[in-house]
Amino acid sequence: MLGSYLDRLRETAPLVHCITNYVTANDVANLLLACGASPILSDEPSDAAEVTACTRGLCLNLGTMKSWSVDSMLAAGEEAARLGHPILLDPVGVGASSLRRTAAGLLLDRLPVACIRGNLSEIAVLAGLDVESRGVDTGRGGQSTETVCTLARELAKARGCVVALTGQTDVVTDGDRTYLIGNGCPEMGRVTGAGCQLSALAAAFLAASPGASLEAAAAAVCAMGLAGEIALARQAPGDGNATLRCRIIDAVYHMDGHTLNKGARYEIR
Amino acid sequence: MLGSYLDRLRETAPLVHCITNYVTANDVANLLLACGASPILSDEPSDAAEVTACTRGLCLNLGTMKSWSVDSMLAAGEEAARLGHPILLDPVGVGASSLRRTAAGLLLDRLPVACIRGNLSEIAVLAGLDVESRGVDTGRGGQSTETVCTLARELAKARGCVVALTGQTDVVTDGDRTYLIGNGCPEMGRVTGAGCQLSALAAAFLAASPGASLEAAAAAVCAMGLAGEIALARQAPGDGNATLRCRIIDAVYHMDGHTLNKGARYEIR
Amino acid sequence: MLGSYLDRLRETAPLVHCITNYVTANDVANLLLACGASPILSDEPSDAAEVTACTRGLCLNLGTMKSWSVDSMLAAGEEAARLGHPILLDPVGVGASSLRRTAAGLLLDRLPVACIRGNLSEIAVLAGLDVESRGVDTGRGGQSTETVCTLARELAKARGCVVALTGQTDVVTDGDRTYLIGNGCPEMGRVTGAGCQLSALAAAFLAASPGASLEAAAAAVCAMGLAGEIALARQAPGDGNATLRCRIIDAVYHMDGHTLNKGARYEIR
Repeated sequence: MLGSYLDRLRETAPLVHCITNYVTANDVANLLLACGASPILSDEPSDAAEVTACTRGLCLNLGTMKSWSVDSMLAAGEEAARLGHPILLDPVGVGASSLRRTAAGLLLDRLPVACIRGNLSEIAVLAGLDVESRGVDTGRGGQSTETVCTLARELAKARGCVVALTGQTDVVTDGDRTYLIGNGCPEMGRVTGAGCQLSALAAAFLAASPGASLEAAAAAVCAMGLAGEIALARQAPGDGNATLRCRIIDAVYHMDGHTLNKGARYEIR
Repeated sequence: MLGSYLDRLRETAPLVHCITNYVTANDVANLLLACGASPILSDEPSDAAEVTACTRGLCLNLGTMKSWSVDSMLAAGEEAARLGHPILLDPVGVGASSLRRTAAGLLLDRLPVACIRGNLSEIAVLAGLDVESRGVDTGRGGQSTETVCTLARELAKARGCVVALTGQTDVVTDGDRTYLIGNGCPEMGRVTGAGCQLSALAAAFLAASPGASLEAAAAAVCAMGLAGEIALARQAPGDGNATLRCRIIDAVYHMDGHTLNKGARYEIR
Repeated sequence: MLGSYLDRLRETAPLVHCITNYVTANDVANLLLACGASPILSDEPSDAAEVTACTRGLCLNLGTMKSWSVDSMLAAGEEAARLGHPILLDPVGVGASSLRRTAAGLLLDRLPVACIRGNLSEIAVLAGLDVESRGVDTGRGGQSTETVCTLARELAKARGCVVALTGQTDVVTDGDRTYLIGNGCPEMGRVTGAGCQLSALAAAFLAASPGASLEAAAAAVCAMGLAGEIALARQAPGDGNATLRCRIIDAVYHMDGHTLNKGARYEIR
């Protein structure tokens, strides 16, 4: 059951290094603290590898990246690889610019990325499909679950890693086994950084269970979606996306393996 | 009625590119999502123009700017101009340093800025008056409404754009017609980034109604002030500025054209 | 009584320049507004000194620092020194990298720092002890109060400044007189940036009472801990660290000297 991965995360309490965007960095840090992990953030090229060496996992996020960010990410990633720490890549808005596309390609070519977490348009860009990107907080709708699964599986096989594609249906696959996850609610799409937070959460799950990337990533996706459902159920009249943002983190804070086992909704294909 | 501009914003759901400070970037992004728009943030010079090309409007904010930020803003602004997207400038703390003054001057000289949104001391600096700046979250009080209107009108005429000067009384003018807006509450002055959020909101309104900058900016100012009033009315004993911050975004999340029409308080001169 | 320092802070309403990390910058700004001060943030080297000149106090925080941040901090710090403004240093994660260790050493050697605020592992690094750093949000436990006091006193004497070492017991000392402070709650350790916020709060207290650094820093530590207790008492079932984060700032917003006098728990040694 996926709940055991959350219990292990709380027991392990890994320190996770995030090279992530400044828009959602605070939420990423608070979410890591909520799940029992601890955050450390440094995106300075001369600092990144040394910081990674203190930690147990690495989360690379392309939002608000700079031209020099790739150097930080490569330095940290090579150190993480040397130490056997799992690396997660969140290719935020990779369709929006050539800087981001080049960076994502370089990171995937050079680093043993354990998991890629993105929305449909981002995963499609990495898989080499030509899609129109529409910002970083939205994906396109209307594709069949089968299409989405195929896309995720292809990228997972091509890159030899786990792919977590989140959207209307969340798909987590290593190319072979695939979790179709039904947790979450549309209102999460109106909270900035819900995806960034999920990526950091998945990095923490992977850091606590490095030998079980697929299950760890699936557990993270279920936990984040379930947190959204719990948060939504607590909304009072007048509460909107800012309050939902707080309640999602709060829900992770109180979640344990038992709650996750009871609330997770998925099938394995 | 101004409410129709909010309805159009929700229908249009524009993607807005913000080059904005890291202090309030999260609130800016959540406010854009609250009003029905979507945010994308990139301040990397080599990335900015390409990101702008995916969007419908541009918000330039001088808070925490770097020496290289001007290049990003110019590149994004020139692309926005080429595409006919409205550009909004928020000259945060422009009185505090020569870097910011020079940047604001350059941006206004080179770009067809549609709207400038600032507090009294910031607008006064742009209008060439010598005033003492006191931080970025406060303006000076005590000036007559007439003085404030004259200042805003002069800058609007000099720069050929809409000026939204917010403070005790909010003034939105194109130099010819002037909205005097009575929405808002003093408690908003204790929420960091209330001004940055308003600027992003105004950029979204302009992006949805590019042919009606004056009315769109006035609608944004009314909507933000009204959100502050709604948020204040929901405060419980013990709630302070951090909770008010969330409730303001929540209030925008639930606002529609009808609510705005009922709550907007303004006169046109 | 320490409450008088809070009353003076609210009367003085100092503008405080923060060169601080982007993870917690928003909370730092809102906390400064909550206590009656105002924030201005600029970390651009060519901007920093000029911004400092508009303010009354300076808070230097090493979280997410860049290689060029030291130049900004030195420029701002030299201007603050020239103007007689108090400087506070928060050596976030100083044990995690040589960049941060070098920066902290340089700043302490070159600037008349009035107060250092850090956790046990950070203070130990500055005092020259070899400790294992574990992220920025946690310290090590298990040391006796006497050990902690000795460490803080030694650094205070060596650097000729006030040291505020926060953890299970908070110690504020000038090397001679020592406040042992019992306010706060363990749950604050799960809110990212509680330390950064305390540092900014202490910088504001120092800016309002520059002649009484020890008492001002002790008042800030009591006020922040008391805010955590008030916030915790307001938590409803299901509320977690994200809601606690808001309520801490809210509690500062409503705190006055009388409340602080009643709630402060400390002894002087």
